[in-house]
Amino acid sequence: MDKLIKISILFDFYGKLLSKKQYDVIDMYYNNDLSLSEIAEEMKITRQAVFDILKRAEEKLIEYEDILGLASKFYNTEKSIKDIEKLVDQIIYIGSEINEGRIIEIAQNINSTIRKILY
Amino acid sequence: MDKLIKISILFDFYGKLLSKKQYDVIDMYYNNDLSLSEIAEEMKITRQAVFDILKRAEEKLIEYEDILGLASKFYNTEKSIKDIEKLVDQIIYIGSEINEGRIIEIAQNINSTIRKILY
Repeated sequence: MDKLIKISILFDFYGKLLSKKQYDVIDMYYNNDLSLSEIAEEMKITRQAVFDILKRAEEKLIEYEDILGLASKFYNTEKSIKDIEKLVDQIIYIGSEINEGRIIEIAQNINSTIRKILY
Repeated sequence: MDKLIKISILFDFYGKLLSKKQYDVIDMYYNNDLSLSEIAEEMKITRQAVFDILKRAEEKLIEYEDILGLASKFYNTEKSIKDIEKLVDQIIYIGSEINEGRIIEIAQNINSTIRKILY
């Protein structure tokens, strides 16, 4: 697995396959930036128990990615689409330079489609 | 779930989360086009047992998609990328018409990047 793909990204992909407890701990730790102690207090369990749940949840997310590889696939697609976005901007630039409105219009349509995919 | 997304597509996404038996039955039925009876013979179980495994496996694939929605997400992205491909072809066409090599070259780079994503 690409190490750049972090737990929070894997959580976006596979979080819903975790148990409710695992889901909540990852969510509090990675998305809401709570500390282990804060989560322990919130959930009325020990800091060690939170740590164990967190580790197990992280392992499960990594296991899902090892099996399915969908996060890497999406990540690579997204990178390629951003490359395309830059190339389209070059086309718009040249289109303006040579004053070719048809090309600018089509290129802008491409950028709208890209935005729908990425955001 | 989008009904157009068929079991074989869901199998590509989530097949590895099925049990080995479920995986094999779906694979034989959808990818190798074997009949229930042929699969039954192959696996030395009854036709009814094959049917039950197949139904349960299909349900599981649909459940995974209901929970994660990754196949639909990919499917929509792919559709948008094919739209982009057509728009890029229009740019290449106009680029040839006005004899603007820089635009053709960039547009061809976009198409290469698209091919890396799609195929």
